[in-house]
Amino acid sequence: MSAALVKPVLYSYFRSSCSWRVRIALALKGITYDQVPVNLLKDGGQQLAIIEYLEETRPNPRLLPQDQKKRAQVRMISDHIVSGIQPLQNLAVLQRVGEKKLEWAQHYITNGFQALERILKNTAGRYCVGDEVSMADLCLVPQVYNAERYKVDLALYPTITRINKTLLELEAFQVSHPTKQPDTPAELRA
Amino acid sequence: MSAALVKPVLYSYFRSSCSWRVRIALALKGITYDQVPVNLLKDGGQQLAIIEYLEETRPNPRLLPQDQKKRAQVRMISDHIVSGIQPLQNLAVLQRVGEKKLEWAQHYITNGFQALERILKNTAGRYCVGDEVSMADLCLVPQVYNAERYKVDLALYPTITRINKTLLELEAFQVSHPTKQPDTPAELRA
Repeated sequence: MSAALVKPVLYSYFRSSCSWRVRIALALKGITYDQVPVNLLKDGGQQLAIIEYLEETRPNPRLLPQDQKKRAQVRMISDHIVSGIQPLQNLAVLQRVGEKKLEWAQHYITNGFQALERILKNTAGRYCVGDEVSMADLCLVPQVYNAERYKVDLALYPTITRINKTLLELEAFQVSHPTKQPDTPAELRA
Repeated sequence: MSAALVKPVLYSYFRSSCSWRVRIALALKGITYDQVPVNLLKDGGQQLAIIEYLEETRPNPRLLPQDQKKRAQVRMISDHIVSGIQPLQNLAVLQRVGEKKLEWAQHYITNGFQALERILKNTAGRYCVGDEVSMADLCLVPQVYNAERYKVDLALYPTITRINKTLLELEAFQVSHPTKQPDTPAELRA
């Protein structure tokens, strides 16, 4: 397929959880790409569309389980984060909220994580759904990073915390980390 | 597959755009189901996970085009609505916003529709992507209904308006309409 011959360009912002999801997918699939830094990113969902496209055009390693029930669980968790949590705590929304923005972000992340913790108790193995890294894990790690940024008490979510820690040991999650991108400011570099 | 033998139950709220998306999918695929009214629905994305599951288990008629580029376009439009617009104007968020809620809803719908109108100018045929009804259309119609509810000026979006009108002529979009559900209050019935 000709698409596989063209080196992809990712328009990315180092700290955007949406960009990070895609960077993890690219790293897992071993796809080299150019990165064009963009200073503001929104419309998180469009990045999920990129991941679905990558999955269809570069199926190995797969990011959706073969089993249909598990696929639905992966999509449910992904969509819960991508539509249910992330849009309500992105930078543009928080700017509009104004002085109560920290409380607002904490409210929506806490609400979302309470539901997520319950879901993961039923679906998780080593990772979000069973023992295979999936699209749900790509969504989880960047969202936990945002939760830490907004000082959400993660001790209340042992399953989320445990899976996040396990995932951060994988190389794909490390090379794609916000502290290691071309547009990461010097003071935030790891 | 045994899943096909069980009559599905949809936990639905007549006015929720997320529920309506799924009702359209069920109608298009000719799946009979029971409906349990729930008075508050959130986490719009989880309904998109249901649609992806329906698509995999009941592939006819398909809601994702066969062509990979078009599939990506359908998912981009769907996610733009499901993650980029709907979560920011749902009832729970507007209640939290308080007295400025109408202005807030209009801001996010207007922002989202400006981008959507540009996207659709490139992708639309008779419907959102080409001439086949897709998942993107299931997301569009309920979102336009919300835009009307919050008095957004739709004259600025001729492509959105034209596609919405065409889709509302289809039976699946009519039987699933919020004015025709088991839990629709008498004064809102059509």
